[in-house]
Amino acid sequence: MVQDVAIIGAGQTRYGDFPDNGVKELFAEAYLEMIQSVDKGLDPQQIGSAYIGNLSAGSGYQLGQLAPLLMGHVGLPHAHAVRVENACGSGGYALYSAACAVASGKFDMVIAAGVEKMRDVSSTKGKYWLGVSGDTEYERLAGSTFAGIYALMAKRYMHEYGLKREHLSMVAVKNHRNAVANPKAQFRKEITLDKAMSGVPVADPFNVWDCSPTSDGAAVVLLCNAKIAKQFTDKPVYLKGFGAASDYLAIHDRHTFTSLVAAQKAAAEAYKQANVGPKDINFAEVHDCFTIAEILAYGDLGFCEVGQAQRLLEEGTTQPDGRLPVNASGGLKAKGHPLGATGCGQATEIFKQLRGEAKEPSRQIQNGRIALSHNVGGSGGTAAVFIYQRGDE
Amino acid sequence: MVQDVAIIGAGQTRYGDFPDNGVKELFAEAYLEMIQSVDKGLDPQQIGSAYIGNLSAGSGYQLGQLAPLLMGHVGLPHAHAVRVENACGSGGYALYSAACAVASGKFDMVIAAGVEKMRDVSSTKGKYWLGVSGDTEYERLAGSTFAGIYALMAKRYMHEYGLKREHLSMVAVKNHRNAVANPKAQFRKEITLDKAMSGVPVADPFNVWDCSPTSDGAAVVLLCNAKIAKQFTDKPVYLKGFGAASDYLAIHDRHTFTSLVAAQKAAAEAYKQANVGPKDINFAEVHDCFTIAEILAYGDLGFCEVGQAQRLLEEGTTQPDGRLPVNASGGLKAKGHPLGATGCGQATEIFKQLRGEAKEPSRQIQNGRIALSHNVGGSGGTAAVFIYQRGDE
Repeated sequence: MVQDVAIIGAGQTRYGDFPDNGVKELFAEAYLEMIQSVDKGLDPQQIGSAYIGNLSAGSGYQLGQLAPLLMGHVGLPHAHAVRVENACGSGGYALYSAACAVASGKFDMVIAAGVEKMRDVSSTKGKYWLGVSGDTEYERLAGSTFAGIYALMAKRYMHEYGLKREHLSMVAVKNHRNAVANPKAQFRKEITLDKAMSGVPVADPFNVWDCSPTSDGAAVVLLCNAKIAKQFTDKPVYLKGFGAASDYLAIHDRHTFTSLVAAQKAAAEAYKQANVGPKDINFAEVHDCFTIAEILAYGDLGFCEVGQAQRLLEEGTTQPDGRLPVNASGGLKAKGHPLGATGCGQATEIFKQLRGEAKEPSRQIQNGRIALSHNVGGSGGTAAVFIYQRGDE
Repeated sequence: MVQDVAIIGAGQTRYGDFPDNGVKELFAEAYLEMIQSVDKGLDPQQIGSAYIGNLSAGSGYQLGQLAPLLMGHVGLPHAHAVRVENACGSGGYALYSAACAVASGKFDMVIAAGVEKMRDVSSTKGKYWLGVSGDTEYERLAGSTFAGIYALMAKRYMHEYGLKREHLSMVAVKNHRNAVANPKAQFRKEITLDKAMSGVPVADPFNVWDCSPTSDGAAVVLLCNAKIAKQFTDKPVYLKGFGAASDYLAIHDRHTFTSLVAAQKAAAEAYKQANVGPKDINFAEVHDCFTIAEILAYGDLGFCEVGQAQRLLEEGTTQPDGRLPVNASGGLKAKGHPLGATGCGQATEIFKQLRGEAKEPSRQIQNGRIALSHNVGGSGGTAAVFIYQRGDE
């Protein structure tokens, strides 16, 4: 890496169901929060480029060129702007591409963003979305659903490693509790373990409490060349490592169901670049689109051995007061999951936590110095992992 | 720019209507031609990353994660892979992002590719495609078509600068003649000026001969760090400059109809980075989705003053034997226009021409040293411009 990369601003909408706001309004709301977060001020015309993650625009509401449409709406009509897409990982890949653009020296200041309006995907198209994660030819057209594919992974984890149904629910209970104090979260209510274990069935072993919601939302992160970061804030956050990797889309081509190999490879790349290891991570935001996905992430990111995730849950390690808080925001499960926005929303949460600006004091993580985010495309066809470090030391 | 960028391989399918080939088959065909073009050989596992341009996958044939699906199909399932989209400029933006990834030092070897299967966009969805270029809210839903928007620009150019109907047709006649010797071209037949002026009306002043076709196709370009290029070929092509910029999608927001400001800004950036000017360009591939688009390009790229393009046509400057051949491949008009593939197909044509490998001797441009490609998203919402230099000197 040639130029080091810093994050100097970040903002996001609340996630939820917003019938009165289109993608332009959602993007502008997140953009304005980002601009206001740059504490020494910024001339937006310095922003040379934008990578914007989105999946659903092609379903009809803006078939092509969503990125320049959004940038024109916020008064930057001429900046380089492009949409990047890797399903639910689109936001992470926007962040990755933006980081490359800064690292290349081509631009000093680049937006990474994501926006999704899942409410506007029409019901006739909606049936497609259940299979969006996987291989159209071998999975979607054969009748598989997104939940169904992750359910296979959960079943296999149970079979190989003795994971119990209640471990899945412990993830849901933790993340719902974490979301209560997060003003950006879609579901701000606690659920009991009994309730989490007895929801309406979706795909065995999952019930509705194992599944992330349908969400609208946007998130915008501002990256710059680390050399100039302190002109804009005394509290930059450095993007010390970024990794991304892929895997076969169709799970019948993979050699394991109890790890996402894409995430393992992405994590290895990010750790190597940042020159840190799993033990150095103080807290993390991980991609819990289904409860099993957080359990897979623990192993894939090296927080435990593959197959030992249940121990972390039983010992409370990933609770907000544990050694390694995971999804203090509420995660995809309770903060919400507006596909293309999720990866940049994770970065926004970490930016605020590392700066001590989590707002609700009850949810501020204390003494966080190094953090990680993990964003997955679909059922693990792609994954991007980022490592962040506080820059005010 | 920190690391210089070279192109060491390129390949593409013929463009056309291929009912028996899906996106995977088209991509693989172009990928294999690219691999074979690396004359000193290559271990494909050295390829760390792929940026793939595509517009239509989201219409149903692969809703998300097309990029890793294609890479898995050619035996590179774990490389970083992501789809980039800016409508008809998607391929150019894939090339731009790939160049940033190499320049950043993050990867030594990166694929830029594009693939499109326009035949597989269903007829009910097909109606959308006529408006894909522009702003859904203000243009497509109001009934405008893609041809209709460019027709407005043609009318305005005629009004302001005295362009005649026959100047439009001169572009079509030239590009059809150029395509005859190109084995990759969709339409390999000459048309007369009379025929070009009297086709079935599409959107006044356009008839069918002013419009590029519906095409299937793929193109794959291999970029690497310039420092290692000569390990793989004695004839690398250097990517000396790359620029990209945007404009308002809806033309009612623009201050001119006789230039694409996005293309002007992209060209200025590319010329500056390459440290050359329009007079240094020996030949060019430009985005002639409609005949007027090539005429706009002449001015936007500085080949003439805005408004003077008809002179270049009358004087034969852009004919294959002129001072500045434009679209020696046949251009979008006759080589074909598989949206997301087009930008990388232009790069493939230039790579082959600069290496003296245009195959049909009759179409080989002599003594070309510096070339330019110009790829536009929709009606000018985005544009990307690239400057290439022969590397065997």
